[in-house]
Amino acid sequence: MKAIVFDDELKCVENYPVPEPKEKDALIRVGMAGICNTDIEITRGYLGFHGVIGHEFVGIVEKAPENAKNLIGKRVVGEINCGCGVCDYCKKGMGKHCQGRTTLGIQGKDGAFAQYVTLPIANLHLVPDSVSDEEAVFTEPLAAAFEITEQVRVKPTDNILVLGDGKLGLLCAFVLRLTEAHVTLAGRHETKLNIARNELPRGETTTRKHPMERSDTKPSRSKLRGMDPRGNQHIRALNITGEKPGDERAYDIVVEATGSTEGFKKALQLVKPRGTIVLKSTVAAPSEMNLAPLVIDEITLIGSRCGPFETALRALAQKHVDVKPLISGIYAFDRAQEAFEKAQEKGILKVIIDFQ
Amino acid sequence: MKAIVFDDELKCVENYPVPEPKEKDALIRVGMAGICNTDIEITRGYLGFHGVIGHEFVGIVEKAPENAKNLIGKRVVGEINCGCGVCDYCKKGMGKHCQGRTTLGIQGKDGAFAQYVTLPIANLHLVPDSVSDEEAVFTEPLAAAFEITEQVRVKPTDNILVLGDGKLGLLCAFVLRLTEAHVTLAGRHETKLNIARNELPRGETTTRKHPMERSDTKPSRSKLRGMDPRGNQHIRALNITGEKPGDERAYDIVVEATGSTEGFKKALQLVKPRGTIVLKSTVAAPSEMNLAPLVIDEITLIGSRCGPFETALRALAQKHVDVKPLISGIYAFDRAQEAFEKAQEKGILKVIIDFQ
Repeated sequence: MKAIVFDDELKCVENYPVPEPKEKDALIRVGMAGICNTDIEITRGYLGFHGVIGHEFVGIVEKAPENAKNLIGKRVVGEINCGCGVCDYCKKGMGKHCQGRTTLGIQGKDGAFAQYVTLPIANLHLVPDSVSDEEAVFTEPLAAAFEITEQVRVKPTDNILVLGDGKLGLLCAFVLRLTEAHVTLAGRHETKLNIARNELPRGETTTRKHPMERSDTKPSRSKLRGMDPRGNQHIRALNITGEKPGDERAYDIVVEATGSTEGFKKALQLVKPRGTIVLKSTVAAPSEMNLAPLVIDEITLIGSRCGPFETALRALAQKHVDVKPLISGIYAFDRAQEAFEKAQEKGILKVIIDFQ
Repeated sequence: MKAIVFDDELKCVENYPVPEPKEKDALIRVGMAGICNTDIEITRGYLGFHGVIGHEFVGIVEKAPENAKNLIGKRVVGEINCGCGVCDYCKKGMGKHCQGRTTLGIQGKDGAFAQYVTLPIANLHLVPDSVSDEEAVFTEPLAAAFEITEQVRVKPTDNILVLGDGKLGLLCAFVLRLTEAHVTLAGRHETKLNIARNELPRGETTTRKHPMERSDTKPSRSKLRGMDPRGNQHIRALNITGEKPGDERAYDIVVEATGSTEGFKKALQLVKPRGTIVLKSTVAAPSEMNLAPLVIDEITLIGSRCGPFETALRALAQKHVDVKPLISGIYAFDRAQEAFEKAQEKGILKVIIDFQ
């Protein structure tokens, strides 16, 4: 089969062996798969992974165990952590923290940038018809954004800052604005920030063009609804090139989604005493830091990884979150190398590879 | 008045001016005051404080405002943070996080290593008769230990590790064992660990000698109660010189009370996925660290500072916590320099200065 393999270098292979499903696995024919920053990190040596990379996908089940034959032909997405099933973590439903786990395309298991992938049937979720393939590819990162509200109690009066206007930062802002809290997204890319500025509140069903095609969005909406600029901009999107994202110690919750150690240091300056910093991005490189302010201001710092797929699929199906403006390009497998180059360019959001 | 002043060097002064109480302040004649590691840090330049140091004290109110005359002659301890009283933090009862606060002997306000100290009457707590002066000096650090259970939900089935067998580590272990969770105290000093080993469970009223004077404690108690060694040792005290404090990822909660950056790194190795690390000690020096494991294992890190005085006083009055074994020496003011040297020796716990 065709597959994108990292083996100290990134290779597009035409004759990679089709994976053999284990007893409880399904074999899935991949439709589309999205490039995540983790994939790019892996191509730079992160976690030392070798094999087929990729973990954000949608596909059709081709083979399934006897007790799950009804899945065959169904469109699915899949949770990426495969626990051992017998340890204390797995027994408590915390298989994603199983110490013997494999993780799709990240650790110990070939991933989804291929024509076929296997996953335990317990990891699979049916994709509602109202969710397109392009949208379904976002299930995994959108679920990761919903993990924030799984872990942290968000109050409607909270003042929340999301640091970083990349894919993850935007998704986090979209999810957090569902809580009705005040959400500020701080980043350095006007095109990305505009996506947040154009994001509509929950439940609104306006058919609309891609935000990049509209130049008059803000003023006209402002006039139509007669709301104040902040109320209208359900997410306040702030360009922080050369400036500060607001006052120091102004935010109840700061979500660090920049992927840089500077982001964490900025979060520490901006969070209120007794506030919460959510770390969404893994920064592999160690950095000089001083945790004394965390003690003095009694800050809570919480690491946050994969999240609930069902919630993400429901939000996509009900159009509570619109991920389509985040798509920067869709490439066929033949142009996968080009897709990877594109994904690493400044200002680019989600790049999708089409395996059909 | 006599006072211990840090002014780039530590000085014992005989003629420091008696502080003038402000409108809502009481003037307190200091009985005893305890040396905290923060005091020692200040003498090394921490926070750049200059003035009378010291913040753990017990004393008698000599002057009070008109509406608090009933306090005069009463024995009190005092909370160390003085908020502005009008900002959002103060209005929410979070004066200890007031951005304009002063902190007794630490920031912007002369401290308690003196014959007289002033504090707002709102900061004062009456000391029950059953609590001696020596014990009352521990109110502030014991309250800081109780801040852990104010912030973190501790379950009786939790497996808790306290890293560090200094004053703060011991007090944290004593407080945490009141929750009936499994508590392990890990340190490098047999004499300090023995204090934990000899600490009796709540409510037991045995009159007993200082643990250092007893050699047969463990076996005889073990026999008397017929309990297994772990059940008997309500706190498991572990000497970690050259060895690990148990398996990696074995603890639901790890309290970092070593005051070293190595302690935090060890905590990250030892805490379970989805577990909690409580940072009790401020390490002023920045250090190289990598927060990726915090994200991957979804660890919660929580900074913890000053805590509830009423709880600490009640626990002392009801003998739920015995702090007396932590007293390494009591020195008159004339020997204050010696007291400071003693406090910095290895194996030494609380050194108290007697101002009476």
